[in-house]
Amino acid sequence: MNFMEKEKPIGVFDSGIGGLTVVKRVASTLPKENIIYFGDTARVPYGSKSNSTVIEYGLQDARFLINKNVKAIVVACNTVSSVALKEIRNNFNVPVIGVIEPGAKKAARETKNGRIGVIGTRATVSNRAYSSEIKKINSGLEVFEKECPLFVPLAEEGWISHKATFEIAEEYLKELRELKIDTLVLGCTHYPILADVIQQVIGSDVKLIDSGVASAEVVYNELDRIGLHTNKNSLGSQEFYVSDIPTKFKEVAELFLGREIQSVQKVDLELLSV
Amino acid sequence: MNFMEKEKPIGVFDSGIGGLTVVKRVASTLPKENIIYFGDTARVPYGSKSNSTVIEYGLQDARFLINKNVKAIVVACNTVSSVALKEIRNNFNVPVIGVIEPGAKKAARETKNGRIGVIGTRATVSNRAYSSEIKKINSGLEVFEKECPLFVPLAEEGWISHKATFEIAEEYLKELRELKIDTLVLGCTHYPILADVIQQVIGSDVKLIDSGVASAEVVYNELDRIGLHTNKNSLGSQEFYVSDIPTKFKEVAELFLGREIQSVQKVDLELLSV
Repeated sequence: MNFMEKEKPIGVFDSGIGGLTVVKRVASTLPKENIIYFGDTARVPYGSKSNSTVIEYGLQDARFLINKNVKAIVVACNTVSSVALKEIRNNFNVPVIGVIEPGAKKAARETKNGRIGVIGTRATVSNRAYSSEIKKINSGLEVFEKECPLFVPLAEEGWISHKATFEIAEEYLKELRELKIDTLVLGCTHYPILADVIQQVIGSDVKLIDSGVASAEVVYNELDRIGLHTNKNSLGSQEFYVSDIPTKFKEVAELFLGREIQSVQKVDLELLSV
Repeated sequence: MNFMEKEKPIGVFDSGIGGLTVVKRVASTLPKENIIYFGDTARVPYGSKSNSTVIEYGLQDARFLINKNVKAIVVACNTVSSVALKEIRNNFNVPVIGVIEPGAKKAARETKNGRIGVIGTRATVSNRAYSSEIKKINSGLEVFEKECPLFVPLAEEGWISHKATFEIAEEYLKELRELKIDTLVLGCTHYPILADVIQQVIGSDVKLIDSGVASAEVVYNELDRIGLHTNKNSLGSQEFYVSDIPTKFKEVAELFLGREIQSVQKVDLELLSV
């Protein structure tokens, strides 16, 4: 039975398409594993919704993956990770890995001067999710959070080296630069798309923390711990499900994933609510 | 009874806060009228949702206003205006005014060279809602639509004269400028916030059409036609309802409305579904 368990896929979900940057990281850390992705594109964004709604949606998203028979769930959504991780863990009997805890731990490990910056959406920053996670690890660390609302639409436009993107990054990051941070957490799954611009603007001496990379490492260790790494020796497959297919979806999704997507299946929201 | 009817408020709704630019226009065209606004901020954006969902939500939003005893409804949302106007008209016995038809009519009236540009969100542009409305009025007119996804978050950031905003406008509008349009419809209720930048970039010889202004004129004429202008001679009141109060809501709402908001009431979505 353990043999069968090992060959189950890893499930990854997000409120939209940002989580595809996490899929990219999980796939490069665990290239032989099969991955199933679900993006709740019909109900994105979660950040502006109430906690009870986010918990309800998060449980539905997780159940969809459980029904696909996954051996672990990666919650590639900062909002669900900060609000609903406990509920998902209580409801399902597989390892559930969020993006905030791994990102926070990695930042706490990497900083030399104890000054960590966190950038995210308005919702994530106003929750102070990373700050409280980092303070739990080491209350002596100083954390400075800054909301960068334009980074998500810039990433979705694919303006990864546009002059306007540099100017917007300049405006958002100048405060963090002045605060002499040496570590910067990309606290939104869209932001790795703009990593080059962010690195140039914040300065090459600041270490960027991609939560997706950190989460992928935790998934690796977790599969180690429970002995569920796949036995096969070929590249894993990937399946993509979304609750809606917006215009330009494929183009944007491929930018985020870093490779072509063969097919995307639309899931009926009604079925999720069961 | 007609006397009582006249003193009822005008209802305005939108999927979010963009419709506040329309409230501003209705209030300046009809300063003595009371206005009730509803913004479905918990379920914004509607543009990425299916038509049947948009119709369902639009009917709920309209019913909320009807329960507030309004004498007319302004659908200050491009998505609902293009998808659900007929259903709302069929269900409620008050004048229902959208933003697309008035904007399209005004553009068709204003153009001299028969070349009209329309800018909007990805959803509005991919529906070609303005094009088909303008073609219905005069099939000889040429309409060029361009999606400008970054304008909504730029408006919500309040970056109304930022260098980055000029550069983004330059990128989005250069094609329309080359197409020698003489009239440009602001096909999204957020865009009037950026009207100065848009005007400077597209050129002072291009006439901007603010759908909110056009809709307010139609409301005025409609109240004329049915004899329901208020009799009172003092400034009208305004009430604001939303389904969620996101961070920075008041600040952004006041920018859009162009004046201070005393209070905003949060409405339970559960009650809307009844």
